[in-house]
Amino acid sequence: MNYSKNFYQIKSNEEIFEALKEEVDIIGYYNLPLQDTTSIKEYARTIDKKYIAIIGIGGSTLGTIAIYNFLKKANSYDKFLIFFESTDPMDIKARLNKIKLEDTHFIVISKSGTTIETISIFKYLSSLITINKTNCTIVSEQRSKLTQFADKNDIQTFDIPINVGGRFSVFSAVGLLPLAIIGVDIDNLLAGAKEIRSSFFNKQEHYEPTMQKARFLVENKNRFNINILFSYSTALEGFNKWYIQLWGESLGKININGTRQGLTPIGLIGPVDQHSFLQLIMQGTRDKTVTFIKIDDFKEEIIIPSGTLNGFDELSYVENLSFSYLIDAQANATIKAVQNQKNIPCDVISIEKVDEYNIAKLMYNYMLLTSIVGKFVQINTYDQPGVEDGKIILKEQLQS
Amino acid sequence: MNYSKNFYQIKSNEEIFEALKEEVDIIGYYNLPLQDTTSIKEYARTIDKKYIAIIGIGGSTLGTIAIYNFLKKANSYDKFLIFFESTDPMDIKARLNKIKLEDTHFIVISKSGTTIETISIFKYLSSLITINKTNCTIVSEQRSKLTQFADKNDIQTFDIPINVGGRFSVFSAVGLLPLAIIGVDIDNLLAGAKEIRSSFFNKQEHYEPTMQKARFLVENKNRFNINILFSYSTALEGFNKWYIQLWGESLGKININGTRQGLTPIGLIGPVDQHSFLQLIMQGTRDKTVTFIKIDDFKEEIIIPSGTLNGFDELSYVENLSFSYLIDAQANATIKAVQNQKNIPCDVISIEKVDEYNIAKLMYNYMLLTSIVGKFVQINTYDQPGVEDGKIILKEQLQS
Repeated sequence: MNYSKNFYQIKSNEEIFEALKEEVDIIGYYNLPLQDTTSIKEYARTIDKKYIAIIGIGGSTLGTIAIYNFLKKANSYDKFLIFFESTDPMDIKARLNKIKLEDTHFIVISKSGTTIETISIFKYLSSLITINKTNCTIVSEQRSKLTQFADKNDIQTFDIPINVGGRFSVFSAVGLLPLAIIGVDIDNLLAGAKEIRSSFFNKQEHYEPTMQKARFLVENKNRFNINILFSYSTALEGFNKWYIQLWGESLGKININGTRQGLTPIGLIGPVDQHSFLQLIMQGTRDKTVTFIKIDDFKEEIIIPSGTLNGFDELSYVENLSFSYLIDAQANATIKAVQNQKNIPCDVISIEKVDEYNIAKLMYNYMLLTSIVGKFVQINTYDQPGVEDGKIILKEQLQS
Repeated sequence: MNYSKNFYQIKSNEEIFEALKEEVDIIGYYNLPLQDTTSIKEYARTIDKKYIAIIGIGGSTLGTIAIYNFLKKANSYDKFLIFFESTDPMDIKARLNKIKLEDTHFIVISKSGTTIETISIFKYLSSLITINKTNCTIVSEQRSKLTQFADKNDIQTFDIPINVGGRFSVFSAVGLLPLAIIGVDIDNLLAGAKEIRSSFFNKQEHYEPTMQKARFLVENKNRFNINILFSYSTALEGFNKWYIQLWGESLGKININGTRQGLTPIGLIGPVDQHSFLQLIMQGTRDKTVTFIKIDDFKEEIIIPSGTLNGFDELSYVENLSFSYLIDAQANATIKAVQNQKNIPCDVISIEKVDEYNIAKLMYNYMLLTSIVGKFVQINTYDQPGVEDGKIILKEQLQS
């Protein structure tokens, strides 16, 4: 008797774990938390411009935006990050209006070194002000055209390792350099990422929840093909967008059996989206999982006063509450309402503090989760072959 | 012989059209384009503060944000709209830092008059500065607590008609008042909406495409349950968010046969999301339709110069192009790449100009499309019963 098969089968957790361990020195992001940050910090201290303009798109900016967006309201940085990502001319003009060119340091970030949006914007900006080593840094792969340009012009460069993909690169110089320049504690960032890394690979606290969540999502992927992050703070809007890229671009793939895979990521912000998408979660088709993210300590205490505005007696129960108490109660009420429904798989992540350590833990944990799901569904988590078609068509159009 | 049935059946286009015509004077939003705007414009001219702070959430803000976001980069308004929507204390503080309280006019918008976020923030702000008729306007239903408060304090009010739901209210005072104050041509807005209204109900140009699109989405709703808007301008980010509320909250319902309905809205921005979600569209599960939105005339001409930055010869084909040409070529290339795939239903909307008329056409058309789909799937498009559970739980928690 002979037996062969080509159908898809979910491997055991132990097999997946072993497969991840095998690639830990091959897929570059795993070891980024272990790097020495001295050279980044030393260089960052030399930048004294007020505006830090990052020219990049996708994986070159989303992680940095996520961390900056999370930290900036709770900290008073005296430098500003401005992101030039889009080729939309109105957008470019609007962002230019936010900076003073002479007081701006430009960081050009592109892994390939030939990203069309990045180079086009860089070309344009360099027609407005002279670009040289005094106001520019390049972050790219070691042999890229961008690095060659920097070397020729004596401009400082930082490497993106070849085995670190854009959407997994936030803990490389891509994220660390601009964040260090404005005063973010990048060692505390890496400490958070390292904590998750060590906990997972040593099968401690974070191993089981992460592995089980991945397994649940994979086992139920055809039933629940939409994965919502419902984050209760506008400071997590950037994180949501980073998650959408990470999840969508990593997992939307054709697997080794030729089957289309892909879980659809959605990012919501509470309480605002209670007045928008929540109705669809509660009464719509049961094809969604929901992960709530709450912040335990907002670093801001604002009290809703009593005695102001008469005539709203039915809402008197909000008086003397802090807004951080109120938003937490709103999150808990929504969580309970969702949990009371049938067939809405739901989990809750609490972030203890608004600091580097905690956002890095969250992000590294999501990168691990993505890697695990990718292994389960037997895809290459780290490439993005589907976006090439459009690039080729564009190039043909523009060259003709 | 007797025959009865309780299964779902899609009605004919003609039946749906008749049903819509029957409700044209009942569902309030249909006739908003016909209103007289004199009183709004006259009052708007009396407001001379620089900062216009809108306190509201969901349907009270999303439409205004969509229009403001669309127009503001192409116009130089000398007043600023700031939206206080969230109970996130860091967010409230950050927005307060953007205004000067003495130079701020407050517009408090809540249909019910007792929205917990709105009243809590209003209470807090009123402890920072005296609120009276010189710096405050109320937009609410005629008999709400908020209107009563305004009447007692001699504060000007504008009505939200009872039969106009929040997410359909942008062409009522909810949107028109703040937009008129900063200098938006609200008559041109209404003219755009009126154009679509008349074209549709007279079965002219916009009737067939809108009806056919709705029918396609409904006939294929179980196969393509995710509807993506891929908008090629950051000026359409607000519109995307407005669409997500409109689509999700209107259509995520249990229908007359007790079946869960709901099409999942997703908003993307090009070219940035070519580097994010596009991979999932191209190679992921075939459960998505994609509507591309392009802007024909960006009102900004920026040219990518030649001769700056040497060493990027392989990208020399971008030199001397304008960014508006480039972003249009990027949109076209992505559209073609998507169309070359099998089983990704795809359509394209072009916006001629960045002005009031065109954004209103787009928005009114989407409201009509939502109404038609709602009729097809036999739901109440205009309520949101699913969000009540969480409100009740919250109230119980806070009162105890």
